[in-house]
Amino acid sequence: MKFKCEQKELIKALNIVSRGVSARTTLPILKGIKITADSERGKVVLTASDLEIYIETGIRAVCDEPGEIVVSAKLFSDIIRKLNRGSVFFSINEEGTVKIENGTFSSTLQGIPTEDFPKIEMIQGDGSVSLEKETLKDLIKGTAFAASIEEARGIITGVLMDIKDGIITMAALDGFRMAIKKEPAEGVREEQRMIISGRIMNELGRILSDYEKGTDDEEGESSEEIKIAVGEKRVFISMDETNISVRLMEGEFIKYEDIIPKENAIRVEVDKKELLDCVDRASILVKEGKNSFIKFKIEGNELVITSRADEGTTRESVVISKEGEDIEIGFNGRFIGEPLKGIDDEKILMLFNKSVSPCLIRPLKGDSYEYLVLPVRLQTTGE
Amino acid sequence: MKFKCEQKELIKALNIVSRGVSARTTLPILKGIKITADSERGKVVLTASDLEIYIETGIRAVCDEPGEIVVSAKLFSDIIRKLNRGSVFFSINEEGTVKIENGTFSSTLQGIPTEDFPKIEMIQGDGSVSLEKETLKDLIKGTAFAASIEEARGIITGVLMDIKDGIITMAALDGFRMAIKKEPAEGVREEQRMIISGRIMNELGRILSDYEKGTDDEEGESSEEIKIAVGEKRVFISMDETNISVRLMEGEFIKYEDIIPKENAIRVEVDKKELLDCVDRASILVKEGKNSFIKFKIEGNELVITSRADEGTTRESVVISKEGEDIEIGFNGRFIGEPLKGIDDEKILMLFNKSVSPCLIRPLKGDSYEYLVLPVRLQTTGE
Repeated sequence: MKFKCEQKELIKALNIVSRGVSARTTLPILKGIKITADSERGKVVLTASDLEIYIETGIRAVCDEPGEIVVSAKLFSDIIRKLNRGSVFFSINEEGTVKIENGTFSSTLQGIPTEDFPKIEMIQGDGSVSLEKETLKDLIKGTAFAASIEEARGIITGVLMDIKDGIITMAALDGFRMAIKKEPAEGVREEQRMIISGRIMNELGRILSDYEKGTDDEEGESSEEIKIAVGEKRVFISMDETNISVRLMEGEFIKYEDIIPKENAIRVEVDKKELLDCVDRASILVKEGKNSFIKFKIEGNELVITSRADEGTTRESVVISKEGEDIEIGFNGRFIGEPLKGIDDEKILMLFNKSVSPCLIRPLKGDSYEYLVLPVRLQTTGE
Repeated sequence: MKFKCEQKELIKALNIVSRGVSARTTLPILKGIKITADSERGKVVLTASDLEIYIETGIRAVCDEPGEIVVSAKLFSDIIRKLNRGSVFFSINEEGTVKIENGTFSSTLQGIPTEDFPKIEMIQGDGSVSLEKETLKDLIKGTAFAASIEEARGIITGVLMDIKDGIITMAALDGFRMAIKKEPAEGVREEQRMIISGRIMNELGRILSDYEKGTDDEEGESSEEIKIAVGEKRVFISMDETNISVRLMEGEFIKYEDIIPKENAIRVEVDKKELLDCVDRASILVKEGKNSFIKFKIEGNELVITSRADEGTTRESVVISKEGEDIEIGFNGRFIGEPLKGIDDEKILMLFNKSVSPCLIRPLKGDSYEYLVLPVRLQTTGE
């Protein structure tokens, strides 16, 4: 193996594939990054995998000799990031160590043979769905946070991706709240339903955000398009020079469509930022974990949010426009704040029935986002 | 107690006094911030103390009723930071709780009576030394990192401040290295020698950095001058509206002047940034704690820095200009990198005698900074 490439491009590629390096494995090979020099295509491909996710990304390189090897992801990243800008030269010597050269700097790193590195066959081509990076990022941002993070909860640690009639729907829930987001997608018309781990979805979201940061420089030749192809056990996501394969979760997802209340007696329209700020402030005193909550008192054209703890109290009011009865209802503050961060609209709707029924949050316009949250039962004493 | 002040000014004051809040105390009062409304001066003073350091800072306020109370530093800061810009109203109600109001928001926080809050008499006026904020910041940045962080090491966990003949000298050491920085100071001529905990010095450095960040806004009425007055058991530092009192450490500091070698047979001139980058890269493979090191091989007009670990090796060369013999010497990479970050000059001098004698690092010009570091004994085998 012998090639040269640019330090800047290596860093960009490392930012992407590092998301696939296993954090808690005892297998050294999964803590590594595979480097593959492909003379024919004039490319070097970096690959990382924790078995659940598999990420490969290519960069331009002048390859004198093809070859492949695995090196420690941490040391490799640390070294590349600290190098000066410019060309970096790679070669493997007889003892199987990788030599890295840049200016007067040189380093040799222990190499690991690639035999035991995970191998994933990528599917590309037909049968795939197309959407924009920004769209996938919004879908993930709007839903993945709501998936359960308790590993024992099985299927609800996953995020459902439902492709049907030119619409891609993502849904996640944890037993206390549920988030559903829909976006148009181009491609096949046949229904595809799959479940991907919430943890992996969040990693995907971070890769997409990193991509965004990387595209405003001079070599911004990246396309906005993402292709998603579904296999039997894995889903394949490709964009620009990056291919990602993610293991699908097995099982039947909750029929989320049935949970959303059809009728809502009380309809409240409120400024999103004002509500988010109020919820943030009311949540300062409220400790996570305890059965504590923030209280919404909706009366006429005013929403009063209060909180109470041993250390003190808070109270704040927001002007709303309301249809229906007055209502008092309690929530876990985080469960109201989190979805609001994923809504770009200025105004939102909160739809209620009773103080013991779930509340539905939606942007004022459109039905692209729906968030359902269970209330906390208010104590009968107290304010 | 009843007053109003501006949220923005409160945040600035909180950034300063929060450095004095005790992190690991079991006494609730030391986790608090004292609020004192002073009607006569039209000021509110915030105070925090962990007994070792005591910080008070004043802000403009419209005080209707004087008074004082202690509140939880954490909750108070969290609330003030999340408020909207504009006026904040404070009052104490009968039950001894503090009411905070801003727009439609209001909060009540449990108050703690001020009786048990530490009381420190501030000395101001005569017998003090004047210097600029920037100067004190540089003195701290250049030395405090070198103080020992092992509590059991006694006096060398402190930083010496030596005021004499219009010069303020600070020195710190930990048994492996020593840093000395000198700056001119105006004020008294009589010699003053005091030792301040390195931890507290670092907090002072952070307060000065925060100050810097805060001064570029419209109300930048802060002065550049700092006054330092020394009492029997404490030193008093005042700048603008902030007064800080720090407990002095008792004991005799090491006679640092005697440790610096008078003669140096080998003199190497090197670009500071190049050296720092090389040391940084060579240190990647070297693990803290193990008896590992980076090796300097100085030969002719070249300095070659190498490192070696189980996982690999690094090698890099820098052009130098040298007087004296060639030399090979080993160092803890961190002990070379840390002082370089505190030197603003482009070129530095490294002065050596033998591979088992300490190395002295200095800016090329002037004697305002001196850093002495012990070498690591090189193994006789190896490269």
